[in-house]
Amino acid sequence: MNKTTEKKLYLPKGFLFSATMAGIKHPDKKPDRLDMAIIYSEVDAVTAGVFTTNKVKGAPVRLCMERIKYGRGRAIVANSGNSNNATGARGLKDAREMASIAAKALGISETLVYVASTGVIGVPLPMKRIRPAVLKTARMVGRSSPIDVARAIMTTDTYPKVFSKRLKIGGKIGSILGIAKGAGMIAPKMATMLCFVLTDFALNKNALRNALKESVERSFNRITIDGDMSPSDTVIVMANGMAENQPISADSRDYSLFKKALGDVLYNLSKMIVMDGEGATKFIEVEVKGAKTEDDALKAAFSVANSCLVKTAIYGGDVNWGRVMTALGYSGAKMAENKMDIYFGKIKLLNKGVFTGREKQAEKELKNKALKITANLHMGKAKATVLTCDLTEQYVRINAHYRT
Amino acid sequence: MNKTTEKKLYLPKGFLFSATMAGIKHPDKKPDRLDMAIIYSEVDAVTAGVFTTNKVKGAPVRLCMERIKYGRGRAIVANSGNSNNATGARGLKDAREMASIAAKALGISETLVYVASTGVIGVPLPMKRIRPAVLKTARMVGRSSPIDVARAIMTTDTYPKVFSKRLKIGGKIGSILGIAKGAGMIAPKMATMLCFVLTDFALNKNALRNALKESVERSFNRITIDGDMSPSDTVIVMANGMAENQPISADSRDYSLFKKALGDVLYNLSKMIVMDGEGATKFIEVEVKGAKTEDDALKAAFSVANSCLVKTAIYGGDVNWGRVMTALGYSGAKMAENKMDIYFGKIKLLNKGVFTGREKQAEKELKNKALKITANLHMGKAKATVLTCDLTEQYVRINAHYRT
Repeated sequence: MNKTTEKKLYLPKGFLFSATMAGIKHPDKKPDRLDMAIIYSEVDAVTAGVFTTNKVKGAPVRLCMERIKYGRGRAIVANSGNSNNATGARGLKDAREMASIAAKALGISETLVYVASTGVIGVPLPMKRIRPAVLKTARMVGRSSPIDVARAIMTTDTYPKVFSKRLKIGGKIGSILGIAKGAGMIAPKMATMLCFVLTDFALNKNALRNALKESVERSFNRITIDGDMSPSDTVIVMANGMAENQPISADSRDYSLFKKALGDVLYNLSKMIVMDGEGATKFIEVEVKGAKTEDDALKAAFSVANSCLVKTAIYGGDVNWGRVMTALGYSGAKMAENKMDIYFGKIKLLNKGVFTGREKQAEKELKNKALKITANLHMGKAKATVLTCDLTEQYVRINAHYRT
Repeated sequence: MNKTTEKKLYLPKGFLFSATMAGIKHPDKKPDRLDMAIIYSEVDAVTAGVFTTNKVKGAPVRLCMERIKYGRGRAIVANSGNSNNATGARGLKDAREMASIAAKALGISETLVYVASTGVIGVPLPMKRIRPAVLKTARMVGRSSPIDVARAIMTTDTYPKVFSKRLKIGGKIGSILGIAKGAGMIAPKMATMLCFVLTDFALNKNALRNALKESVERSFNRITIDGDMSPSDTVIVMANGMAENQPISADSRDYSLFKKALGDVLYNLSKMIVMDGEGATKFIEVEVKGAKTEDDALKAAFSVANSCLVKTAIYGGDVNWGRVMTALGYSGAKMAENKMDIYFGKIKLLNKGVFTGREKQAEKELKNKALKITANLHMGKAKATVLTCDLTEQYVRINAHYRT
């Protein structure tokens, strides 16, 4: 499933980009694709981050989590081809060295540099290639576009993912730009969701942290390809204040404006990631409403969105409301079978736990590229939506046969 | 993956079997396969059951749960082709009628008859076909074998599943016979795990209930095909006492003998079910040891066994210990990355969180039909094993394209 990235990009002031070919994945071959990138802010930026909750964490994630506490940043060094994961003490040393080389070349403090890596696991970074590449990439900041950066962090993504918004806050025009790579935890040994968000609006530390946390909760935390979670997932947002607005605090009216726009950027990137899920042919939106609590609604929606049986049925064009009902039933959410309604698109298939017989009408809904499944539990007023894609033979092929 | 069912069967005394062709799945066509069965005990049997924990439950499950409270039984009526699920009040009425027709024909009390159905969901039972078929099947008890019964309850199973044991308890020879159908919640709209266990040993109600509960916990509750759970899962055990041993109570030495044998029967049936998972080419045993608690060990083992990425990798012959590590990491179990060891067969791939480099050696392990993955968390002494199979293109094909 393909969706070309946004054509018109709004660039926040004061951010420079660089992307080069370092040949990280195959250090014995000639480099043949972009796999290293640097994002650089001309001035210190308020910085916040959200990282994988997996107990297994890559060295770059551990380094970022240490530095993000201080809430400041100037640059991000990112690479694909090797995730620097399961590499022990050496991994952390290597991640630090990447940051340090970039910092020296850019003339900034090392502690303001973040690192993100995605790719093979368990293989030490080929530092002989990484060292000169980081140096070269740092020297070239300003010569590439955000799309080049998006390309440099791709693994099995089929297209670079970039989304931006321009808006006015406190009388000043500014932008929010997001660069991401896809999930579906894959190739060569596992992949990762990476997202870098850059804005020239000024925010104070807490405002940026809260806005990021809430926006991630309603975007990246509500998508699923296969239920797996990478040890490298990273979202970093940098706000450099060059739009010259009055710094946004968490209790201001400007805050909601900013948060809404940030949420929009992250939601659109999430959607791109799902649509680019490995082997996916269909985009699926699962909405559960009438739940007793939001937690129940989320549990139920994720249960449906993660069900292999639901996902294969949709791939096969099978109006299999029975599998949806079943996945709701074992989700752990409070529900009563005889209150449950299920819709495919606008067609009601289950009414108070009993099949309506309208399968034929619903078959049309499965001919489209996108399907909305709605379940109403009639237990309360809470609701939640989760985005996913279908499960195809191609997914199995990619994940079974992908070799470095 | 095929595994022929056990050739030599030990038959407990006093149980009679019957299986017929009722034409339930396609009521407009001529019946062409066994799809109805009755198991009948010549005398009242102490009876216990374990049923799906899905909040969505088929009518037969609801009927059984009502009757099992009294702990007695004489017969089980089972069918494939229609699961009598999501059929509302009518479904329960139909299930009761099936039991009632069988009871009359067999000359026993209706409340001693259990019903189990598997097959399409949401379609009312074709009672015009069911009524005469139940009558006919009841009249023919004694004319079929347990294997015929196993055949009659098959859906996408590729072979009938039967396992038996003979042993001496309290100086008396008796048998335990299990008949099951497979999981992988499938065709046409969903499938089900059904298991009927028959023994001529005498047990008191509590002893039978406890033995069943504990044995299911260590067999059927430790297998997973795709993580989905059917609303019809049913395990019923009947103990008719015709071996004439002193009735086994829960605190006797005989109890452990019986429980061990019952556990063995259920474990072997579980294994057959996993090996016959849809599209499976490989049998996978996931053992997690060194966990802080048994619950942690189970969580971690299930997380690995349910990971689509682990399962596709094994299908593809890829020694992907990184995906195993990742699935452990997000399982929710207590662990520290730098204590974690992972083995494929006997080959250690991860040592205290660091890759050992022994992938080449481990590739041989993936050439076999069965793979054991072991993780040692080094957090404590608890352990657990979960059985599963690989995830293949054929699984997707079966579940995407299977139509009635």
